This record gives sequence, structure tokens and C-alpha cells, in this order.
Amino acid sequence: MFSSRINKLQNTFGKNGIDAFFISNFYSILYLTGFKTLTNDEREAFVLVTKKNTYLFTDARYVFTNPGIILKLIEPGKGLFFHLEEILKEEQIQNIGIESEDLRVHEYEKLKTLFSSIKTISLERAMIKIRAVKEDSELANIQKACEITDQCLKEIIPTLVERDTEKGIAFRIEKWIKEHGHDLAFDPIVAIDEHSAIPHYNTKEGNGIIKNNSIILLDFGVKYNNYLSDITRMVFLHPTKEMIDTYSKLLEVQKKTIGIIGKEKDPRIIDSICRAGLKEKQLPDFPHSLGHGVGLEIHEYPKLSQMFDDSLIENHVVTVEPGVYFPDRWGMRIEDTVVVKNNGAEILTNFTKEPIIL
Amino acid sequence: MFSSRINKLQNTFGKNGIDAFFISNFYSILYLTGFKTLTNDEREAFVLVTKKNTYLFTDARYVFTNPGIILKLIEPGKGLFFHLEEILKEEQIQNIGIESEDLRVHEYEKLKTLFSSIKTISLERAMIKIRAVKEDSELANIQKACEITDQCLKEIIPTLVERDTEKGIAFRIEKWIKEHGHDLAFDPIVAIDEHSAIPHYNTKEGNGIIKNNSIILLDFGVKYNNYLSDITRMVFLHPTKEMIDTYSKLLEVQKKTIGIIGKEKDPRIIDSICRAGLKEKQLPDFPHSLGHGVGLEIHEYPKLSQMFDDSLIENHVVTVEPGVYFPDRWGMRIEDTVVVKNNGAEILTNFTKEPIIL
Repeated sequence: MFSSRINKLQNTFGKNGIDAFFISNFYSILYLTGFKTLTNDEREAFVLVTKKNTYLFTDARYVFTNPGIILKLIEPGKGLFFHLEEILKEEQIQNIGIESEDLRVHEYEKLKTLFSSIKTISLERAMIKIRAVKEDSELANIQKACEITDQCLKEIIPTLVERDTEKGIAFRIEKWIKEHGHDLAFDPIVAIDEHSAIPHYNTKEGNGIIKNNSIILLDFGVKYNNYLSDITRMVFLHPTKEMIDTYSKLLEVQKKTIGIIGKEKDPRIIDSICRAGLKEKQLPDFPHSLGHGVGLEIHEYPKLSQMFDDSLIENHVVTVEPGVYFPDRWGMRIEDTVVVKNNGAEILTNFTKEPIIL
Repeated sequence: MFSSRINKLQNTFGKNGIDAFFISNFYSILYLTGFKTLTNDEREAFVLVTKKNTYLFTDARYVFTNPGIILKLIEPGKGLFFHLEEILKEEQIQNIGIESEDLRVHEYEKLKTLFSSIKTISLERAMIKIRAVKEDSELANIQKACEITDQCLKEIIPTLVERDTEKGIAFRIEKWIKEHGHDLAFDPIVAIDEHSAIPHYNTKEGNGIIKNNSIILLDFGVKYNNYLSDITRMVFLHPTKEMIDTYSKLLEVQKKTIGIIGKEKDPRIIDSICRAGLKEKQLPDFPHSLGHGVGLEIHEYPKLSQMFDDSLIENHVVTVEPGVYFPDRWGMRIEDTVVVKNNGAEILTNFTKEPIIL
């Protein structure tokens, strides 16, 4: 598995004019080698893929064995750059690709200063484009993460009652997921009433409570074998007719949008069709993108947005999450995780989208 | 509070030869403005501090008001670089400092390409050095986080029993913290027996169980008002004499090390004295640094290590965490969070360090 992924990266060397790729992103390292450090942001591991070899640089606090990968221990007096110098000389490397969306400027400057004869080539998206096209085993993990999410919703929604707090519900979701041996994909968003109109609502800092005519937005996901799911569903308590009408229209647009994914592969066109669908129903536009890639990271390549100019490819996994927001009143969003196929899309989150009324 | 912090940064402009500082780090932005995005790694907000003004760039999904800070909304057609261009022209800025340990290469390259007449100056540590010297309100938050951690230990340790799993204990710690309305500083490390000998043990991927002669390492912290604590304590079940002897020696060294902090301000000397203390007692050296700064981030400036050449300053907050590890057998670590004072150090984590035997 790892060697075929490394091959995929090596196959891009020719067109990118490089003879090695320096990998710094936590998730890219996990993808290529199966290795991960304790946290995703401490810069404790790096990888160099050359035409012949793959090297992992990390320190002795970690234990790692993978026969296809050469481990270079970072120790006092023998740091990352010491090892790099040896390898660059030995393999006569001239041009190194870097993950420019991940590498820090101070790391880059050190690389440039120490290896002034070597050319670094910024290859934004090169690595994440490879990661975006999911293999069968990755799809199976994402599918499983989605199934666990569906089951969690099924068990948590019937427990919602008047006077429940946003924080309390978010914590029950978290507890359910962890008590079942899994992990969160991200901190759950539970947004009640006027908070549901804030697309980036921070539940941890809020104080919403279910009242006897509340609208409740639940947006969360599960991590299973490092892979993530993402879903949003709405729950109502004595909803107004306006809420249910709006929900039905939004749902119709969301389903129609999923229906064109895969047949249509340009994210800008998909995004436009979705927004036009809302407009046609006299609903306001939403101030966020239509969706995002999901995999090892919760927001990864590709993006369904007007700003995104690459095409969708079979086995990309994306969310589809249009919303309707009436500031200071209420809002709603319906979100599924789907796999792009050549002539359509498969929905992985299968929890009901009929209006859920408590 | 925020204006005095911004002043601290502006006061470094002269010696750094800059007339503006571009801030990209999530925690630096939180520190300077009180604003935070939903996650710490999505690059959804940036700050520019000039001699006269402070600008926050983010999108309309966020709500932010702070009278001292000028909000510039990132919207379609008016991105970060559009706003930057206007400000750089208007305020006639020539030299911009950047957080080079945080800024991504692709952001840097865009800055250089779009504003080719402006000089960017890599200022590693400039911002984090300011953040490292804690104000009274920050110390109060860290102190409170430490008190909650102490209380959690007091209530959780008596619940440990034979056949408890590492994951189960870690989850009980997490539940206790969240049920008390707080948050984790980081994923708790619970390491039993041979796992306690791995300094970077990943509890989420382990399967240790308390046996009738187990040694149990608990390493965790609490987040309170965005500020963190960090503590490690050992718990024993029918320990051997060797374990208790080793623990007493390690404890003596840890206490002695804390005793010299503040009086001695060179991290390398403090680190050396600690390691010499272990050696004198015929204990092995530990393969990690002696300690790290704690604040908004769990590992921040300064570091207690041989590789660190800045001095400690009053109101730095650091951990002191020497360990003894016998690979494949067992290990132990004793860790406190302390505040550096001019002639000593104040310990903020006050849970007992007497050997805890179940």
C-alpha cells in the first residue's frame, strides 16, 4: 500500500522537474509511510522521497518499522539537515519539490541557506492531489466512519429534550463516539435557534438551550482508522411552517446538487447550479463554499467553490452542504459526505433527511 | 489588555527594522486581538500591526468587534492581498516582519510576488518571545488550569482498579474535565507498565491494562480560558522496591531542579544540573528535553534544553519533567508547571508528589 503511494508521488517527478520530494505535512507523512507523531503540528517528523528511496526523519522517542522506508534518527549533533546533506550528496539530488502550503518559511530558509546549490521547487497541491483520489481501503474507512456517524445520530437525537444545552448535546455526541471506541473528526457543532444562523458557530463558547419551538443544527463527524466523516442534520421542536417549507426547499436543492456531481466535474458549475437552485426558490445565498474534500483531514482538496479551478476526479470524497441563514433568527444546513464516481456520486452518510421533529 | 500587547509588539519595530508585522499564527492572533477561528490550522485569519493601526483579516462567517482593531472582511474579489495592498500603500510601509516559524512558503511567495518592492524580514521567535512573558491575568488562568488538574487527579486516582485500560482511564480524565465545563489541554497520556517507558506513548493506539503490580503514568492538562496546564504523576499497584527507590531518586532530582530555576536563568545549565543529578544516582539519562513553555499552546517558548540558548525571564511559565525510562520494562516521569520568578520558581501544580500506591 505505502510503496504504491510512494510510486504515485515518484511518477510526478518527471513533469515537475524534480528528483526528490521533501514532505513536511503530518497527514502526507501518515499517508506515505503509516507513521504519525503524537500531535499534528509539532514538526517532529519529515520525509524525503527520492527516485530510489524513501527516508523518514524523526527522533528516538518514536518507534517505527516499515521495511520499505529508511529511518534516519534525529539526535543531538545529527539533525534533519545533517541527514539531508548526506542523502542529497549520495543520491546526487539537484531539484527538490516542497509542499509549499505546509512548509514553514524558517524551514525553507534553512533548506535554501544550507543547500544553496540545490533548487527547491514549490509544488502546492502536488501531494494533496494524490491524497485526494481515494483507494478502496480508504473509501472503506470513510464509509465506516459515516456509518458510525449515522448510528450516533440515530441514538442521540431521541435524547434531545427542552432545556438541553448546546454544550451538553455536543458532549453527549462526543461521549457516544468515544464510548464506542472511536474518535471525533472535529469538535461537534451544536447550534440552537439564532446560533444556527452563524455558519461558523463555536459551540464551546456558546450558551444556547433548547426551547419549546427550537431549531437545532448538529454538525459533526467520526474518525475511524485515521479517516473522517462529516454530516449535518437539523432537528425541530414545534417548527413553524416557514421553517419546514424552507427545509423542504433546501433539501430539494441539496439532493439535486448531489445528483449532478460526477456527471458534472467542474466544481464552479456545481456550485453555481446549487446557488441558482436556492435563488429560484427565493432563498438567500450562503456565505461559505458548497463543500470540501474529506479524508485524513476534515477540510482537504478538492473544494466545491467558485474559487476552485481543478476538476473532480473519480474517488474524490467531498461534502455537499448548502445552507440557508437568516441572521439573528435561525439557519439550517444539510450536509452529506459523498464519493465522486464517473457518472454520479455515492452518498456515504445515509441518515434520514426527512425533517426530524422531536 | 490587547492594546498593551500590541504596543509590546510595536516596540520591537525599531530594533527589527520594520514598520509593520504580519501575524499568521492562530495563538498569536488570539493573544493580540482576542479573536480566534474555529480551528487552529485553517488559515482563516491574519493580522497586520503597523505603527498606527492593527488590522484583522477574516471572513463574514465570523463575528468580531474590538474597538481598537480594524476589521477587513475577506470576501469574493476582496481577498487578504487586496486589503494588504491598500494598507501598505496608504501607510507607506516598506519593511514587514513575518512569523517565519508559522508562515507557509506559499503565503510567503505570494507576499513576495505581489509586493515585490516591499522587504519581508523573517522574525523567528519575535512574537512568541512576547507571548512567553505572562501577564498577571494570564498567570491567573494558568494557575486555575493547574488547580483543576490537581482536583481531577484527586478524584480520578482513587477510581483506578486492576483491569482498567489505558484508554478507559484517559477517557475518564477527559469526561471529568469536560463534565466540569473545561477542556483538555491535549489528549491525555495514560501509559501502563512497559508503555510507561515510551516517552511519546500514544494512548489512543495502545491497549495497556492495570495488572496487580502495575506502574501507571498519567500525563495530562486542562484548558481554562484558553490557557493550559501540564502535569505528570505516577501511580503504583504493589510496586517493587526498585520502583519506589527509583521514584524517590527521580523526585529528589526533580525538586532540586525546580529549586534552581529562577536563581539560574540559563536553560542549558538547569538541564545539565538535572541530568547530572540523575547520573549521580546511577539513573539513566532521558531522551527528551527537561521542559517546555506553557501558555496558549502546550509546547511554546522557552524550552529547557541543551539546544536552547535564550535566557529565562521572570513570568515565563515552564514545565519541569525529568524521567527515567527502562525500555521494555517500565518508566516514570514527574512533571510540574512552574512560573519563573527572579529569585526562584513558583510551582502551580500542587498535587502530591509522594509515591501514590493504590
